[in-house]
Amino acid sequence: MRHAMKRAAIALAALSFSVLAGSSAHTTGWGPEVTSFTLGNGLEVVVIPDRRTPVVTHMVWYRVGAADETPGKSGLAHFLEHLLFKGTKKNPQGLFSQTVATIGGSENAFTSSDYTGYFQRTTRDRLKLMMEFESDRMTGLVLTDDVVKPELQVVLEERNSRVENNVNARLAEQMEAALYLNHPYGRPVIGWRHEIEGLTREDALEFYKRFYTPNNAILIVAGDVTPDEVKKLAEETYGRVPRVAEVKPRHRPQEPKQDAPRTVTLADPRVTQPSLSRYYLAASYTSGRPGEAEAIDVLTHILGRGANSRLYQKLVVDSGIAVSAGASYYGTALDTTRLGVYATPKPGTSLAQVEEAIDAVIAEIVEKGITQEELERSRNRLIADAVYAQDSQSSLARWYGASLSTGLTIEQIRSWPARLNAVTVDDVKKAARDVLDKRRSVTGYLIKPSGSRDDRS
Amino acid sequence: MRHAMKRAAIALAALSFSVLAGSSAHTTGWGPEVTSFTLGNGLEVVVIPDRRTPVVTHMVWYRVGAADETPGKSGLAHFLEHLLFKGTKKNPQGLFSQTVATIGGSENAFTSSDYTGYFQRTTRDRLKLMMEFESDRMTGLVLTDDVVKPELQVVLEERNSRVENNVNARLAEQMEAALYLNHPYGRPVIGWRHEIEGLTREDALEFYKRFYTPNNAILIVAGDVTPDEVKKLAEETYGRVPRVAEVKPRHRPQEPKQDAPRTVTLADPRVTQPSLSRYYLAASYTSGRPGEAEAIDVLTHILGRGANSRLYQKLVVDSGIAVSAGASYYGTALDTTRLGVYATPKPGTSLAQVEEAIDAVIAEIVEKGITQEELERSRNRLIADAVYAQDSQSSLARWYGASLSTGLTIEQIRSWPARLNAVTVDDVKKAARDVLDKRRSVTGYLIKPSGSRDDRS
Repeated sequence: MRHAMKRAAIALAALSFSVLAGSSAHTTGWGPEVTSFTLGNGLEVVVIPDRRTPVVTHMVWYRVGAADETPGKSGLAHFLEHLLFKGTKKNPQGLFSQTVATIGGSENAFTSSDYTGYFQRTTRDRLKLMMEFESDRMTGLVLTDDVVKPELQVVLEERNSRVENNVNARLAEQMEAALYLNHPYGRPVIGWRHEIEGLTREDALEFYKRFYTPNNAILIVAGDVTPDEVKKLAEETYGRVPRVAEVKPRHRPQEPKQDAPRTVTLADPRVTQPSLSRYYLAASYTSGRPGEAEAIDVLTHILGRGANSRLYQKLVVDSGIAVSAGASYYGTALDTTRLGVYATPKPGTSLAQVEEAIDAVIAEIVEKGITQEELERSRNRLIADAVYAQDSQSSLARWYGASLSTGLTIEQIRSWPARLNAVTVDDVKKAARDVLDKRRSVTGYLIKPSGSRDDRS
Repeated sequence: MRHAMKRAAIALAALSFSVLAGSSAHTTGWGPEVTSFTLGNGLEVVVIPDRRTPVVTHMVWYRVGAADETPGKSGLAHFLEHLLFKGTKKNPQGLFSQTVATIGGSENAFTSSDYTGYFQRTTRDRLKLMMEFESDRMTGLVLTDDVVKPELQVVLEERNSRVENNVNARLAEQMEAALYLNHPYGRPVIGWRHEIEGLTREDALEFYKRFYTPNNAILIVAGDVTPDEVKKLAEETYGRVPRVAEVKPRHRPQEPKQDAPRTVTLADPRVTQPSLSRYYLAASYTSGRPGEAEAIDVLTHILGRGANSRLYQKLVVDSGIAVSAGASYYGTALDTTRLGVYATPKPGTSLAQVEEAIDAVIAEIVEKGITQEELERSRNRLIADAVYAQDSQSSLARWYGASLSTGLTIEQIRSWPARLNAVTVDDVKKAARDVLDKRRSVTGYLIKPSGSRDDRS
């Protein structure tokens, strides 16, 4: 166990279904028997038994993320996540983290476009202590300018190191802004620099009072505990937290019909190797029709996950024009998400050559679809990956948290392997036609400037 | 005079300074002696004398436009503009417009990102009647679902004819969305179709009650009247309208540092002639430093206004590769606006050739600036255009309205020729370097699909 407080990478619904866990690919309900109940104040509680070691993972997920921010206040959800460590009347700043460290636990926090989460991992006998601390800061946060202002500098520094000093992140940020014409997923989770600079204590408190309330949260406890034990402890701690706000449906501005492919070109002297990536709008597990996201998961795997994928085989193995090539899909999101493809050309190969090769692979899968053999291999591998990931208690808990906080149900989580097994060759072909439509895409080029005036015209 | 009710084209700050009017280019105060005063309820009144004919132009401008809409409700400002014709308790639907027609007047209304305006033009003896009608609908609008729902269909039809059936407008809409990564100028004034479809009576009334109040409006009367006459009539009509809301400062989300040039490609079988355009972010008269927008106006003129401009001379006259080429700049805007360049290649010339030629013209003006002779010719022409436009009473009134409702003062309007005359060769060179930076631009390509699958990949 690590003792330092550390925050996980910020990412748009960063969990993919590769972190699923389960015990059987052939039952509709899979994985451990999960229990859930709701406290009187509206807090949803999920208990995931895992009795291998006397350890528990304790997580609280709030159904709020960067896409719920008021325009002009980007970065507020993430800034508030930082401020949650600033103490309450009962537990002054630092006491919670010191306690976790002293008892040999670990802790973490993370913000995405759709959710904000906090977790600790400790031995089972410390669960109630964690619950006392975490429930206390659900509504008891105390903020003064003395702690808020320096933390703003910390966040700006984080933006520097994560985005401004990373050419890939800078390009990704501009590509997301160009992919979404209307939806707030186009805003960076960490926030635009000039808007972070303007965030205040009042902004943070207003956001906190609006979204941090038991009826907008999910408590997930995974580990060596019974549902009855968790229920009793939850009633004694979280059960005393008042419901401080009513929560409205999460309706964000949606995308218009997209008609025109876009490109974004970032030229930077720090680019060591030019590269190419493309984002396509794609339905998510929450926004899609039944079975749609499952088919996109299979499509992405066949297209670009691993050395057997089509992109890797064509660009890296067969023609050798690229040193890497692949695809990714972020299915765990409330609204329309994205499927990405990427490639890095071999030195001496142009981005145009590589793009042509990617376009050919995509045109083929759109026109001819996939084979039954590819489908089966891909489904088996996706499910096997998920079973393998079950080994991590916190991955399992995190998958439940991300799914539930983006609007899925426990039943939907548990029936995933069955639904994946129901995906057909035709479903994947249809997904390819729907998603891999360049009109709903942005292509990003990362290049070296060829001269001092090359980035201007 | 036309008798039919007609609404002006929707445009982002559609007025350019070519509609200025004035009597002398060599005085600091220019044009007619304008009088202004404020009523007790906060209504700002501006009187512009024009005694050539016994006619008046009566306009009310609200300091609200599409950029003030709540995200997800795009099109609401424009929809409400339509609904303002649906009648009040005192004046049922149709009576105002019928009256204007009966007395031989004309009327109009328009919405931009920054303002919404209503005007009538009648003989001078009908001014009080217009004021009675217009002040009545400032806060007295009555809306029922019976009138709201059919009007929504009218707006959707308007979107069809203006945008969906016009490839240039479709490309422009997508380019604006790609130019603005964060600011609401990226939203179309008419609204995204799926959001227009969701607008309700309640949305319209809420918006109306928030923004339609005398303290958020400007009354402009131009024509054959004295300030004292207008004051008396305004007190008797508008003076009785209650202040129904307090108005907050108009702080919209601003753009982050833009780093990466973008492109948008629209392929459509209806394209008869491929073309190319590019938008650059540019300071507006309101958002820029003193003198900045004036220099951009001169820059735009030299670059691409008229047959003597550099783009026209190089692309159309000298090399003959284009059938048209030019530039435009929308300086009358609250926030960062845009400078546009465009060209249509001669049949047989590719977009790439034309883009290369545009880039060369731009690179030259950025690197070498302009000549004193170009500066003088351009300034004189801009001022002459403005003087010429003074001939139109409604253009003059509209210029005052657009400027005042985007945050300028009467003094700033009147000193414009003096400030334009103060622009130097160095100011224009600096403006070229600041604005013509491809990293802060989007380039749009309008093309014919070369095959049925060409718009996909």
